[in-house]
Amino acid sequence: MMTEFDVSQRWARREDLALLTDYYQLTMMGGYWKTGRNDLTACFNYTFRELPPHNGFAITAGLEQLLEIIERLRFTPQDLHYLSRLGTFDDAFLDYLREFRLTCTIEAAPEGTVVFPHEPILQVEGPLIETQLLETAVLNTLNYQTLIATKAARIRLACEDDNLVEFGLRRAHGPDGALSGSRAAYIGGSNSTSNMLAGKAFGIPVQGTHAHSWVMSFENELDAFRAYAACYQEPILLVDTYDTLTSGLPNAVTLFNELRAAGRTVRPAVRLDSGDLARLSKAAHRMFTEAGFEDPLIVASNELDEDLIADLKRQGAPINSWGVGTHLITSSDHPAMGGVYKLVAVRENGGAWVPRIKLSSNPAKMTDPGRKRVVRYYDGAGRPLADLIRLADEAPDRIDPGQPAKPVPFAERHDLSFLRAVWDAACCEDLLHPVMQDGKRVGMSPTLDEIRERARAQVAALPEELRRLRNPEIYAVGLSPQLAAEKVRLVRQAPGVLASGPAA
Amino acid sequence: MMTEFDVSQRWARREDLALLTDYYQLTMMGGYWKTGRNDLTACFNYTFRELPPHNGFAITAGLEQLLEIIERLRFTPQDLHYLSRLGTFDDAFLDYLREFRLTCTIEAAPEGTVVFPHEPILQVEGPLIETQLLETAVLNTLNYQTLIATKAARIRLACEDDNLVEFGLRRAHGPDGALSGSRAAYIGGSNSTSNMLAGKAFGIPVQGTHAHSWVMSFENELDAFRAYAACYQEPILLVDTYDTLTSGLPNAVTLFNELRAAGRTVRPAVRLDSGDLARLSKAAHRMFTEAGFEDPLIVASNELDEDLIADLKRQGAPINSWGVGTHLITSSDHPAMGGVYKLVAVRENGGAWVPRIKLSSNPAKMTDPGRKRVVRYYDGAGRPLADLIRLADEAPDRIDPGQPAKPVPFAERHDLSFLRAVWDAACCEDLLHPVMQDGKRVGMSPTLDEIRERARAQVAALPEELRRLRNPEIYAVGLSPQLAAEKVRLVRQAPGVLASGPAA
Repeated sequence: MMTEFDVSQRWARREDLALLTDYYQLTMMGGYWKTGRNDLTACFNYTFRELPPHNGFAITAGLEQLLEIIERLRFTPQDLHYLSRLGTFDDAFLDYLREFRLTCTIEAAPEGTVVFPHEPILQVEGPLIETQLLETAVLNTLNYQTLIATKAARIRLACEDDNLVEFGLRRAHGPDGALSGSRAAYIGGSNSTSNMLAGKAFGIPVQGTHAHSWVMSFENELDAFRAYAACYQEPILLVDTYDTLTSGLPNAVTLFNELRAAGRTVRPAVRLDSGDLARLSKAAHRMFTEAGFEDPLIVASNELDEDLIADLKRQGAPINSWGVGTHLITSSDHPAMGGVYKLVAVRENGGAWVPRIKLSSNPAKMTDPGRKRVVRYYDGAGRPLADLIRLADEAPDRIDPGQPAKPVPFAERHDLSFLRAVWDAACCEDLLHPVMQDGKRVGMSPTLDEIRERARAQVAALPEELRRLRNPEIYAVGLSPQLAAEKVRLVRQAPGVLASGPAA
Repeated sequence: MMTEFDVSQRWARREDLALLTDYYQLTMMGGYWKTGRNDLTACFNYTFRELPPHNGFAITAGLEQLLEIIERLRFTPQDLHYLSRLGTFDDAFLDYLREFRLTCTIEAAPEGTVVFPHEPILQVEGPLIETQLLETAVLNTLNYQTLIATKAARIRLACEDDNLVEFGLRRAHGPDGALSGSRAAYIGGSNSTSNMLAGKAFGIPVQGTHAHSWVMSFENELDAFRAYAACYQEPILLVDTYDTLTSGLPNAVTLFNELRAAGRTVRPAVRLDSGDLARLSKAAHRMFTEAGFEDPLIVASNELDEDLIADLKRQGAPINSWGVGTHLITSSDHPAMGGVYKLVAVRENGGAWVPRIKLSSNPAKMTDPGRKRVVRYYDGAGRPLADLIRLADEAPDRIDPGQPAKPVPFAERHDLSFLRAVWDAACCEDLLHPVMQDGKRVGMSPTLDEIRERARAQVAALPEELRRLRNPEIYAVGLSPQLAAEKVRLVRQAPGVLASGPAA
């Protein structure tokens, strides 16, 4: 069976991702095309319904990769050959796909933005047939990178100002899971990665020490340390190949003593990769201090996450660099961001936009209808106070404080804080910026370091209650009165059981 | 910063994965090269220490992708330019990398093999400098695909003989997380995927229905169903856009009645994507039965996993097709396989192999030294009884039953079952097969369907106690007496605190 397939197709390639989509997108596209619904224009919103557990906020990431996919999206001859073999699609539809080019317009929160549940983070407008196709690429790209940037931001909070190295490549979900994961982790706050591919592709600083195999390939540990220090200017020695306290650390102290005696001024540096990191890091610090070394670099690794790091810091562990792999690159306690991409409005033949709603017995799964804007209110010190989701065609930049957000399930608890925020706000800004117009990129792409700095500054500006690792305050996100009213109107009009409720 | 980098490098490409490695592999390689250790030959083993929670076994996957990477591994001019800019590596070493070709020899358990903790699943021999480089690619590829194949096998057990569609693309970790994840899920037992890229690349059957947006783009739900049925021969209708019981299902029954009246013989088919799947599936079945339709196809989706599926089946939910996304493609309750790649022996200048060990205060993290073979014993019905890990140079194919596996921590509890297994065994076979000799592929690659069938047959042959979803029996895996003795000898010889124990 595999012999029928070109081996070069077995890896995801940026140039060839039109089929990075679900089968049903193509059957729906075929259906829209066949039923002559090409004249329909649609607006879709990307939102997520809940934050990862214990998180007060999320950090957006992945937009740049998404736009790269969209910009170059073409159905290749191989794609069309494959689709043809499936036997589901008309030849005429496949001919249409051959010439298919995306013309849609996209607004998005820039990468590195702090965002909250239910807010549109990306808004796509264009022919229904195009905007439908994009669903899967949007979700695949933004869900994963936003998840990892958010996890990294959380680990950064636990690390405080220490060095944080992302060590996830070996536990990431495939080569690209690692590559885009390293990028997202850097946006969220890691200082560097062990992943050379990410270093090359994105200019992320690379860091590392050595493995147990280095030590085991020598006759003894001290010789291994000596050889490593002879090769590299600033060696970091892994000290747990045999026994940390009785072999690794004493040999490391011997080595750094030898370097000092030879006139090399080098900061002693070790990595602890197993055992009781609190006890061992204190022992390491003491042994180096007793040998007359100040401020040894103590790197810790081994299944670390933000809780372990916070706990080690609470115990006063003198660790000043953290290598975090599995739990960062897979966001292990919550390995998927449940972002969704939902139709919110349609427009026929250049007419008016008609809002659409999806109902659900679970209120959090009910969509907010209509094309939207998201406005963030700030106090005079630039601290965010509350976000308002409103319809795109509402006039005022500032809602009337006398008209609080209509209570809808997820905004309910925020009415008071919301009102206060709007009263107190010194300024506000739109969260969504144009990033693509008629299928073409708009504006300059920020550099990765600019994105990372944006994320850092946004997290720093949050009230500290939102930055807690446990039980963070819930940020106020409200719907404008007009949007809330529109939602209620559509719920009442909808078919099914709700239609038997009170008339609108 | 990003402007310095070639945008085409930002996606993992099969042809360009020499740097799919950790920084420390390159510093160690540089060190081996600089200290003249090129004459050293090494043997590394890939093993994992524990199964995902509640699993009685794992299914190997990812070997094909790994071999594709290894076969083509070259440091490109861009790679070398990048390495040179880091300032860590000598020009002479970079010149060496320019000509670098892998010459190593690899044995592996074929993809789709049932395996257990502590067994070498892959054994790599070759120059230390090469075998070191491969660590990260081995771990990245095998850890993820083995994880997902194992999760899929578990979900397959819950689904029994029902159709299982992998819907994970939108929650997978990046494009390739989805692509290699879909492949691994198929190996483990899914019937199809929604991922078109995986369909094209690997020939996996693709399946799907339609989304809420299809319904929402029409003026009403029934028109949307009519249009879909007009486009596709075997429509599966998503019935929860507004209200499943009062709108979606009645409209679906109407539609299938209309098709029947028009002479189209089509199996009624709906997808339930929210709400109480037990209650709704029973209602759907009843409504179609009352309308005179036999055997409706009822597809369920919405955050399913093996436990939910088993519970729905226990409740008699008449669901006959399962769409599983997030929890399959991320293995959400255990999103990383903790496989490791450890040096087990070295050899200088063609001399004898010298076993190596890594110690740890945690017995499960202590490595098993030496080049190995893994032998699986079967009863007369082809049912696996026990596995034996032994040294490669041990003579007998069958251990002496009078010499049970030496008790070492992880084999301890198996002494009795192990002995019994070896007494009872009708035959045995080696688990590791040659797959690469001196850097060249050996033998034919199995097709993906052959791999999938191997996995199916291997799981089917397991004692049912190993296939339980909770508290599975623990399969007997033992060390040969010679390997166990070698391990004890090396522990006693090792530096550090253990050296002060009794002499060997």
